Order: sequence, then structure tokens, then C-alpha cells
Amino acid sequence: MPEPSPSDLSRRGLLGLAAAGGVGAVAGLAAGAAAVSAADGGGGSASARRYDFYGRHQAGITTPAQDRLHFAAFDMSADASRDDLAALLADWTEAAARMTQGLEVGESGAVGGSPYAPPEDTGEALGLPASGLTLTFGFGPTLFETADGVDRFGIADRRPPALEPLPRFTGDALVPEKSGGDLCVQACADDPQVAVHAIRNLSRIAFGRASLRWSQLGFGRTSSTSTSQTTPRNLFGFKDGTANIKAEEPDAVAEHVWVSADDGPGWLAGGSYLVARRIRMIIESWDRVQLAEQEDLVGRTKGEGGPMSGGGEFTELDLTATTPDGAPAIADDAHVRLAHPDVNGGIRLLRRGYNFVDGNDELGRLDAGLFFLSFQRDPARFVAVQRSLARDGLNEYLRHVGSAVFAVPPGVQAGASIGDGLLG
Amino acid sequence: MPEPSPSDLSRRGLLGLAAAGGVGAVAGLAAGAAAVSAADGGGGSASARRYDFYGRHQAGITTPAQDRLHFAAFDMSADASRDDLAALLADWTEAAARMTQGLEVGESGAVGGSPYAPPEDTGEALGLPASGLTLTFGFGPTLFETADGVDRFGIADRRPPALEPLPRFTGDALVPEKSGGDLCVQACADDPQVAVHAIRNLSRIAFGRASLRWSQLGFGRTSSTSTSQTTPRNLFGFKDGTANIKAEEPDAVAEHVWVSADDGPGWLAGGSYLVARRIRMIIESWDRVQLAEQEDLVGRTKGEGGPMSGGGEFTELDLTATTPDGAPAIADDAHVRLAHPDVNGGIRLLRRGYNFVDGNDELGRLDAGLFFLSFQRDPARFVAVQRSLARDGLNEYLRHVGSAVFAVPPGVQAGASIGDGLLG
Repeated sequence: MPEPSPSDLSRRGLLGLAAAGGVGAVAGLAAGAAAVSAADGGGGSASARRYDFYGRHQAGITTPAQDRLHFAAFDMSADASRDDLAALLADWTEAAARMTQGLEVGESGAVGGSPYAPPEDTGEALGLPASGLTLTFGFGPTLFETADGVDRFGIADRRPPALEPLPRFTGDALVPEKSGGDLCVQACADDPQVAVHAIRNLSRIAFGRASLRWSQLGFGRTSSTSTSQTTPRNLFGFKDGTANIKAEEPDAVAEHVWVSADDGPGWLAGGSYLVARRIRMIIESWDRVQLAEQEDLVGRTKGEGGPMSGGGEFTELDLTATTPDGAPAIADDAHVRLAHPDVNGGIRLLRRGYNFVDGNDELGRLDAGLFFLSFQRDPARFVAVQRSLARDGLNEYLRHVGSAVFAVPPGVQAGASIGDGLLG
Repeated sequence: MPEPSPSDLSRRGLLGLAAAGGVGAVAGLAAGAAAVSAADGGGGSASARRYDFYGRHQAGITTPAQDRLHFAAFDMSADASRDDLAALLADWTEAAARMTQGLEVGESGAVGGSPYAPPEDTGEALGLPASGLTLTFGFGPTLFETADGVDRFGIADRRPPALEPLPRFTGDALVPEKSGGDLCVQACADDPQVAVHAIRNLSRIAFGRASLRWSQLGFGRTSSTSTSQTTPRNLFGFKDGTANIKAEEPDAVAEHVWVSADDGPGWLAGGSYLVARRIRMIIESWDRVQLAEQEDLVGRTKGEGGPMSGGGEFTELDLTATTPDGAPAIADDAHVRLAHPDVNGGIRLLRRGYNFVDGNDELGRLDAGLFFLSFQRDPARFVAVQRSLARDGLNEYLRHVGSAVFAVPPGVQAGASIGDGLLG
């Protein structure tokens, strides 16, 4: 599968390609490259930002978190073979390499093929630039399972020992239909139409081999992954992710995010583990909590986001500080204390979550919350932090309704497939 | 209820206010005023665009369609009184006037009040500029209904004769939980977090008096309402709304959108009627239709969007043109023919719809489609066009699952409430 050459590509976003100086001409930070960004006259989010798909690591992890998300989990068809899995991953790789560059999903695209065949591309992103799209692929525990005693894809012995379904946590109220999955694709972009277009076309490519198990849109990133970004707010109204791992901290990224060659298995070196949690917020109850209690529960001020131990947003927490009456300044059950590396053996997670609102429930409450995404070197690190959070005072206002874990393979070079390491 | 003065406002988006030159300093096109727009460094859609809330007409109708939507329908509580309704509409008016200017919902805001009280504002839009937010209010037919023989709000005799529930149409598969409503609020903005913040805070203000019946997020506008905007694409991959009524056509707006004093009732003059339809697209089936058939069904080319009778996107349809073999160039069942004013007695609707994707159904199909919104001088005009579309070839790929109609009162001047005309 040779890399497509610029001459035979159908160009979706002429603006984007022109502004970025040609296909693949940009290189830069982290897993990809920020080009330029533009805004149209209609309040849209047109952005010519483009990130390389190929590289040592997959893009969409340390890439500065884009504002919009469409996340999808897929299950392989019951009768799919190892060859089907290999072909699907190869087809997805090729499509992802094109779409992340602002190209249509196939060479003939939405309008360039035979009029007497269905178009290769569904067309709703025609005219839109790359919009910073990243596509990040992962493998769930069930992909490695035997079914009725049969090792259906011949990869049972390649399963990373660390890739186990997550244990049950205090407060879990998981819905199977929003949990798990053999495969996942995280689509992040500056424009939701571009992220949706990508998941739709990857679903279409999967037809007959894999099908959507669940998917989730997110409209507002809740963490920064680059020091160039301001800290956004979650639906509790607080800044979220101030102390997140940033791409500009290469030592922390190496220590906390990437699987090393020593960690094993070899095919996963340079990859990571992705945890997804759909966390419903009981915002109507939260909104009746007094400001002081909200701040105590979080452990930061609501305005600036400084720690309750004093200082501004980026001041380090002082977990030993006390109030004039001798109580801990950062409460014992404050979220920031229980999530802090100092009480979790130094563990830091790279968070990449999004706010969501999916209409409302039958009681007229918004179905809203945080679609938590984190990347870490070992899922056990997430488990340790989440267990620490069992005492989190915020839990009264949270319900974890979806959960999944995936092994995220490393990036690939042009011509290779995202499945080569696993299946090769 | 005096208009808040700039000195006592808690300023949410300092960037936005500074860029726009102060509260209420901008005036311009249509129902509001476009100020300036900005983009942050993180791929976001920060926009200091601000539209006046007060005016002859409500904003959010001829205002250039923003890219993001949160639409909400509310039902009044069973025991709510006329005073409750009047107070709710007054409170909503005051909150809307503030939020559309980039201000927090109350004067003390998210962090400026007593620490021992719940904050007035939920806080997730702190630091975000106005982002072009418009809030548009409407009254559903059920608001005027008597319950158990009681005229609960004393407005049964003020019901516009034209405000009847929509009739059943061919292909309707309506879900009551996504239809109807006593009241509606359309929140449109350049930033989804700002639209969501507005609906959430209006829902909170309504507590005890009205509650959410249903709500819908939309991520991509599917129509232009200004000649300054490019034509976006719907999830069939086609440009949508090319021939829409534009704000720059004042005669067409007057003829087709605003209720006149002669139309009656008097309190609705300068208002309009809003029709909302949640239209699920069967995109998996559509994606298997050959390009030529897709174009015949729509009546336009997929690429440029020119009519099948020839020419570019903005060329007028020639409904009489034929192909070399004598068939109509624009098919008899083509969508653009059946929706065209020439076959509908000159009727034009001002469309303001949005693309949506709400995850997927249990069969792994994306729950995706068009959240159709149109404003028209009389709901009967929508009914006529929708009946014409009974023969639309696209119907095979569409299911109307939600439906609602609302009378949209005119705009108000500072100090008045959106309910004054109805209840005064």
C-alpha cells in the first residue's frame, strides 16, 4: 500500500492545502505538526491546521487537544477472520492518512468516480480543510479473547498482560451498551463536521467486518495537552486539567504515557493505553451546592482555579497547608488531593477528555457530563488513581455509566498499517 | 426590571467586551450586530461576535446562522400559575439579555456572590466571550390549552388561530418525547459550550415553574441566512439551503418570515412561527446509492451544487428543462423541485437547521440527520411545502421522528419582557 502521491489525490479543502504549502510539507511538535489556522466569515471553525498521520507515535495523544471529539468503539463481526482484521486495519490506515491531510477518503472521492457507483467519500466534509483532524486507533481486551475455544484472530498469545477489563469501582453504574469494544477510533478536530465525517467513513469502510458498538460526541475539551493552550472548564464550572501532562514535558511523557520496550509486549512499544469513561454529572444537584463547598470538594477556587492552599492557577498544591482553625486547607476528600501524584506514588495520567450533553433524560435532567479519556503507560496506573478517588467528595455528583480500555499501538511509517505490529 | 448598567455587570469574557468596545456599543445588520471575531491558539472557536438581544424582532432568525445549536423545549409545571409564567418569561428575558452580551447570568455570577450560597451562574462559560450567542423564545400550542376545563394561564383567547399542532405527514414516525412543548428556546452560538451554558442556566431559572421536555444539540448549520456565508453541507453530503431567504433580502423577509399586523393576533406582529423537525437520515442506505441517483433525488450536483438543469450553485432552477432523451432534467420527484416556490404558490421558508449525530442505535447505525428549523409567517406555509414533499424521492432515506411548532413573539425593548405582548 504505497503512500498516495499528491498528484492523484482529490483535494477536499483547497484553502487548507494552499495555506499549509502542500501535502506533507509541514513538520513540528510532538506527534504532528500545527500549520496555520483560519476562520470563515460565518462563525465557523474552519482551520487549516494539519497533523501528520505517520510517525513514531500515533497523533491525537500529545497533540494539542482539539476542541471537538467523535469517539467510536467497534466490535468485529462474529464471522470475521484474521485476514478481515488485517485488511480492515490496513484500509483504516490508508483512509486515516488521507483524511487527516484534508483529503477525501478515496481517490475518486465524493464526486470524482463513476456516476453509476456509490461515491467513495460521503461528501459532508467537501470544501472543509483538515481542521486539525487526528485519528487514533486502539485494541480492546475482547479482540484478543477466544470465542467458543477458538482463537479467532490468532492473537491470543499477543495480548498485553496489562490489557484486562477494568475492575469495578465504587460508584460505577455501567451500561454495557456504552462500554467495551474490540476496537476504538478517537477522532479529534477543530470542526465537529470533520470529526463526524471521519468516523462515518471509517464505519462505512468497516461494513461487513466490524460495526459500531457505541459512539460519543464531545463538544468542549476539558484538558490542555500543550502549554500553548488555556485551561478550559468542565460542566461543574471549574477549570480542569491544569496540572495535566503537557507535550512540552518530554520526560514526563516518556515516564507516564508511552509503553517502553521493557514494559512489553514488543509490538506495543511506543504505544500507550487508553481509558475511556463516560461520567454523567448530576448537574442539577451540583448547581444547588454553595460556592464554598464546591471549592472544597474540588480543592481549587472556581474563579481563577488556584489551589485552596493558596496562590494562582499554576501554583503547586500544598497538601500540608492548614486553615487558621487547623483544618487541612485542601480537604481530605478534595478531588485534587486524591488525584495528586503525591498520594498516588507519583502517577500522572495524560488526560484528554471532553464535555458532553446528549439531550436530556425522562425526568428533564440534561444528560451531561465528562467523557473522560486518559492515556497512560499501564492501565494499572489509572486503576490506582481511580481507587484513590473512591473517597472523592465529588462522587455524590458523578455516575460512571460507560467504561472501556484499549491498547493503543505505536505510530507507523508511510506504507505500513496500524495493525502490522500486532498481526505481523 | 431596569436594564443592567455596565458598571454593575460581572464581565464573563473580558476579551470579548474589550474587543467589542463596551456593552451595547455595537449596532448593525438585521436583528443584531456582528462585532469582531477572534480565534484562540488551541483550535477553539472563541468569538467576540455579539448580537443585541433587544430589538424589533428577536435575534436568531435573520441573524447569520451560527455554527452550533442547543435547542430546548420546556413544559410548564402542572401547578404553575399565570404569575409563574409571567415571572419565568421576565427572568428568562433578563438572563438572555445578559448572556447574549457575554455576561454571567446574574450580577454576582459564578464566583462573586456569598460563598455560603449556590452561585448564580454555573460557571462553565467563565472566560469565554459572547461567541455570537442568540436566544430565541417561542410559545407552543399546548401553552394556550385549557386543562380539565381550566384556562390555566388565562390566555386561551389569545391563541393565534394559526398555532395548531402540525398535521400528520407521510412518513412521520414521531416520538412524543422528542416532540411538542409549551415553550422553546433556540440557543445558537459560535461555541457549543456557550450555547449549552445558556440552556442549562435557563433550565435552572425555570426550576419549579417549567422543566425540560426535550433538547437537541446541533453541530453544523445546514443553511445560510446571510449572503456573507458559504453554503454548508448536510449529512447527505450535499450543499443545503442555497436558495434560502437571506437577511439581505428585506422584501422577502417581510413577505415570508414576519407576522404582519394584519395577520393577527396583534401581540404576535413582528414575530414569526418556528417549526422544528428532528429528521433522522438513514445514512447507511444513502451511502450505497450511486452518485447519479443521489443527484437526481436531490436535483442538484453533489460537487458544486448546481441544478441538474445546468449552471452553477446560484443558477436558478429550470423546472422545464429536459435531458437529450426528453426526460425532465430535474426529476419529477427531485427534492428541489417539490420544495421550490414555483410549485408551492410562491412559498419560501427561512431555514435554520443543523446537522446532528447522537451516538448510534442498537444496530450500530449512527443516530444522525438534520434538525430542521424553519421560520415562516404562517405554519400553513410549512404544511403546504411538507405536503408537496410527500412525493420526494429522498423520503426513502428520511424518518421524521420529532416535530414541534411555536409562535415566536416579536422582540422587546430594554426593560420589557418577552412575555409582555402575550400576557400584558
